[in-house]
Amino acid sequence: MSKKNKGNIIKDEFEDLGFSSNINGRARRLINADGSFNILRSSGRWKQQHTYQWLVLMSWKKFFMVVALFYLAINFLFAIAYWMIGVEQLSYSDLHFHPFWIGFFFSAQTLTTVGYGGISPIGFVANALAALGALIGLLSFALATGLLFARFSRANVNLMYSKVALVSPYKEQQQALMFRISNQRRNLLADLQALMIMTWIEADSNGRRHRQYRSLELERKFLPMMPLNWTIVHPIVENSPFYSWDKNSCEKRDLEFLVVIQAYDDSFANTVRSYHSYRWEELVWDAKFSPMFYTDEDGNTILEMEKLGNFERISTKKEFS
Amino acid sequence: MSKKNKGNIIKDEFEDLGFSSNINGRARRLINADGSFNILRSSGRWKQQHTYQWLVLMSWKKFFMVVALFYLAINFLFAIAYWMIGVEQLSYSDLHFHPFWIGFFFSAQTLTTVGYGGISPIGFVANALAALGALIGLLSFALATGLLFARFSRANVNLMYSKVALVSPYKEQQQALMFRISNQRRNLLADLQALMIMTWIEADSNGRRHRQYRSLELERKFLPMMPLNWTIVHPIVENSPFYSWDKNSCEKRDLEFLVVIQAYDDSFANTVRSYHSYRWEELVWDAKFSPMFYTDEDGNTILEMEKLGNFERISTKKEFS
Amino acid sequence: MSKKNKGNIIKDEFEDLGFSSNINGRARRLINADGSFNILRSSGRWKQQHTYQWLVLMSWKKFFMVVALFYLAINFLFAIAYWMIGVEQLSYSDLHFHPFWIGFFFSAQTLTTVGYGGISPIGFVANALAALGALIGLLSFALATGLLFARFSRANVNLMYSKVALVSPYKEQQQALMFRISNQRRNLLADLQALMIMTWIEADSNGRRHRQYRSLELERKFLPMMPLNWTIVHPIVENSPFYSWDKNSCEKRDLEFLVVIQAYDDSFANTVRSYHSYRWEELVWDAKFSPMFYTDEDGNTILEMEKLGNFERISTKKEFS
Amino acid sequence: MSKKNKGNIIKDEFEDLGFSSNINGRARRLINADGSFNILRSSGRWKQQHTYQWLVLMSWKKFFMVVALFYLAINFLFAIAYWMIGVEQLSYSDLHFHPFWIGFFFSAQTLTTVGYGGISPIGFVANALAALGALIGLLSFALATGLLFARFSRANVNLMYSKVALVSPYKEQQQALMFRISNQRRNLLADLQALMIMTWIEADSNGRRHRQYRSLELERKFLPMMPLNWTIVHPIVENSPFYSWDKNSCEKRDLEFLVVIQAYDDSFANTVRSYHSYRWEELVWDAKFSPMFYTDEDGNTILEMEKLGNFERISTKKEFS
Repeated sequence: MSKKNKGNIIKDEFEDLGFSSNINGRARRLINADGSFNILRSSGRWKQQHTYQWLVLMSWKKFFMVVALFYLAINFLFAIAYWMIGVEQLSYSDLHFHPFWIGFFFSAQTLTTVGYGGISPIGFVANALAALGALIGLLSFALATGLLFARFSRANVNLMYSKVALVSPYKEQQQALMFRISNQRRNLLADLQALMIMTWIEADSNGRRHRQYRSLELERKFLPMMPLNWTIVHPIVENSPFYSWDKNSCEKRDLEFLVVIQAYDDSFANTVRSYHSYRWEELVWDAKFSPMFYTDEDGNTILEMEKLGNFERISTKKEFS
Repeated sequence: MSKKNKGNIIKDEFEDLGFSSNINGRARRLINADGSFNILRSSGRWKQQHTYQWLVLMSWKKFFMVVALFYLAINFLFAIAYWMIGVEQLSYSDLHFHPFWIGFFFSAQTLTTVGYGGISPIGFVANALAALGALIGLLSFALATGLLFARFSRANVNLMYSKVALVSPYKEQQQALMFRISNQRRNLLADLQALMIMTWIEADSNGRRHRQYRSLELERKFLPMMPLNWTIVHPIVENSPFYSWDKNSCEKRDLEFLVVIQAYDDSFANTVRSYHSYRWEELVWDAKFSPMFYTDEDGNTILEMEKLGNFERISTKKEFS
Repeated sequence: MSKKNKGNIIKDEFEDLGFSSNINGRARRLINADGSFNILRSSGRWKQQHTYQWLVLMSWKKFFMVVALFYLAINFLFAIAYWMIGVEQLSYSDLHFHPFWIGFFFSAQTLTTVGYGGISPIGFVANALAALGALIGLLSFALATGLLFARFSRANVNLMYSKVALVSPYKEQQQALMFRISNQRRNLLADLQALMIMTWIEADSNGRRHRQYRSLELERKFLPMMPLNWTIVHPIVENSPFYSWDKNSCEKRDLEFLVVIQAYDDSFANTVRSYHSYRWEELVWDAKFSPMFYTDEDGNTILEMEKLGNFERISTKKEFS
Repeated sequence: MSKKNKGNIIKDEFEDLGFSSNINGRARRLINADGSFNILRSSGRWKQQHTYQWLVLMSWKKFFMVVALFYLAINFLFAIAYWMIGVEQLSYSDLHFHPFWIGFFFSAQTLTTVGYGGISPIGFVANALAALGALIGLLSFALATGLLFARFSRANVNLMYSKVALVSPYKEQQQALMFRISNQRRNLLADLQALMIMTWIEADSNGRRHRQYRSLELERKFLPMMPLNWTIVHPIVENSPFYSWDKNSCEKRDLEFLVVIQAYDDSFANTVRSYHSYRWEELVWDAKFSPMFYTDEDGNTILEMEKLGNFERISTKKEFS
């Protein structure tokens, strides 16, 4: 088989990234501004999440509500139990509530292992229940506090992306697609890796529209450390899938560049990933990024984060020729 | 040595994956439907598991039984000890049980660090024993709760595999072996890697049957992220070990394709692995997978999980020629 | 485009490591002696650190102060609350303090789940507050103790670097840049990787000074294990960016070699990284490292850490020719 | 420089693995039977271990002694403090010990947060001390229990190595160096990597003996999973450093093969490493490993661990020619 004969449909088949698709209407962007993916799933028969994932990925507000509800529910059940065995199995003084509440507060003091002793078990069954309650409390609070800490210490990264990607002059006579990132946090990122995928929609001869995907070659896809910023560059050379596109074709074909940045974060001692995308509306042609840091008189290097997205338009005539 | 001279037996020797074997009877599949391996070990002299592995890999039911038994056993031992030193070393009122149970419940209240004070140590030995019990309780519950959380938060993946693997038309004039996977959970998998190994049984000139292993080249063995599904494709080109096999030879030689999928799960912050296999009974010839998602009018991408295994039979005449 | 036409500015553009810069004054070193980076950020609008990172990276002294302040503050708030609902909701005897302190100590006993019972809640609101306090205590101490352990067990490495880097004779007729490292701790480091970047400042035709970066090829950049020391060697061959430099040009151009060492530490079960740099003042020409270990009569290998930086000057005449 | 001119001393320089050395006496083996390294360090000025490493790597017996001593010491200090402020600041009854022991047991009940209330603080200073003690208890037991669990759950591997390495016939007319490993535990190891380094001692023209190191090419250095055993094979082809050695030269030069096996252990969710070495005494010439598993009538694969090291001697005449 000669390379020339490869049709578009076939090539798509082995260039797809697991989410090739038939497009009916106008396509929305695949990756949202917050890095999440724009994909819905039909209500299928699959278990959507592991319990741990559910508890780790939910909002903090919801998490605390789940913990509080669990605490109340367990105490409620134990309160019922103590009430049923008879509140006289508990020793207490100066507490003038309904027996349910005696059991409830006793359970709370048991589960949390506070155990003031203002209420204490005297009957055999109450003693056994209390021993069970303390065990349940230790085990379930181990889950709650473990989850709390896992959520709190979960590695994540807060990269700032330039608002737009630029098509800039590059070397002599050439152009390159560029965007710029910086770490919004003070800590050092190491072993950064960048990946850039170009996706667009193309109609075949039957008028059916297919999503196309191509990986883009980057001038540098690995950076050992990023104390400052990083400009990620795709040279638009002849074998680039973006070669010979213009503003018009970008819009017509719903062009979108998917970006994945991976790095090692020393403070979390873990690998972090960041997703982003640039749509055709977020492309600026014939411009280049402005410098965003300088060295002052003392020799210090000063990074100006607010200038990350700054660029200057340049004449379309090639400057480096 | 010329490449032509390599006989089959010799090649097997350096293609084996650590489990080459002489086959006596009909071979059972190597990887079960649940991803476990179908291998028995003769009762040898080796320590089969590290205690941690045993406690992490056992069923939840068994784990809770181990914890409960441990709790009862420690309390039992302390109860005996308090009984032996004399229950008058403990101060208590309104408790009318056998001294053993006084000690038992006191131990439970100490181990869990509840310490109501309804029972409290007054003798010197009882105080020393209680101080020891609280220390033992803290340390052993640290193991129990640590294990509980390690079990609960242990990274695992729930991939859905297509029921069958297909032999589909591929590019022009060619065929490819394909199967399809999708994540049953809602979270995003990143950095997926696929590995496919073909194994079968072959008789040598003496009639002894040997298991053979070959790695299969995949069209794409790495996927940076899988928001939707992934079709893993082995092109059956001339240097493929599966080239020129037919249904008959597959059955006769107990053909099985071993599959390993590895991915990074962001919610667990860890790498996960999934094992699967397709046997000759699970191969469908001359068929191709049906689409399993579409873009609706709002531009959303909808994934239909229940269609993962759907395929359509096609005429054996090459369609792309 | 021919390779010859690549000017310096262009080449810099794709050799920069994310921190290329215009230099106004004399440059200070980029990596300090302690491995930290010498970079300031202008007060921008970005969130500088994740709370977790802040609490993990701060000094121990500061961390304990944060924990103590948090403990006092929570107890203070609960003390106010108990005072407001009336201290008669608490049962206590023999305590003759201001009601605020009764509430304060009761809160401390609740948060830490000690719960002596010398003070115990008798009113309904006090009981509810105590149940809440115990929950808050468990959750917030889970963070405090989790952070304490994360800080304590955080993987780090303590490499000793030779004080200077040497330009030594190397093979026949050649020279190489060398420095030597060793692990200051007794544990074994595995899978070491070294990276060396040369950076200097160069004036362009307009007199503007630019920072230049080049990766240096290492003779060996991977070491499977380092029981003893490791001499990292950059051969100064013709395509090396350091080729044909002399002492004078090093000083004039503020030469600095950035070093990154990465390794796997078995005891922490994690990857560790170490940063270092050598400036032109820390280069010694025409010298070679002295041996730093020997085998004694019993066949034991003895490592002398204090000799790590020892070197002997040699005549500039090539020795191996 | 032509390749031919490379002398032995020079080559050693860039083949050394960080522990090249001058040898005075007879060399002992570099890696002991238990996988530890046979290296001593002269008492230098370096900090030998991070506290965490010290506590994680010490024996269990020593660890429990450290914990117990710490517990006793803290209680001792608090006992002194309570004694100094006056034991009348504590409320207790029926306890007829020396005031020191009252304070000691009260401290134990506070640190472990048991807090029976049999002893409870009534003075202001005692209350403040108790609040401090509970905080110290929580924090220090977080370290103790965290360390306990880190030790218990620390990933390690228990590989069984064949007692000897074999020089076996290999393919046609060739020989190969082989050894065999298997996992002593029931769990599955994934992503195994093998590394083999040959080291020996050679005298230079001055009679000084130098240690030499060479990496050995392996026929297969990666195995995706090891349900059974793995035979690691170094083909002794012409460019192998072991080519043309015989039994005599092995002994004379203190030959030793260093082995590093790395794998991913799913149950620990971590990477594990194993070190081993074969000395010249542990080489067997002209032998091959016997099969160590079979398939029974039901099609099950049975692994016989006790046969791992079994081999059969074969005639020195090449069998495959």
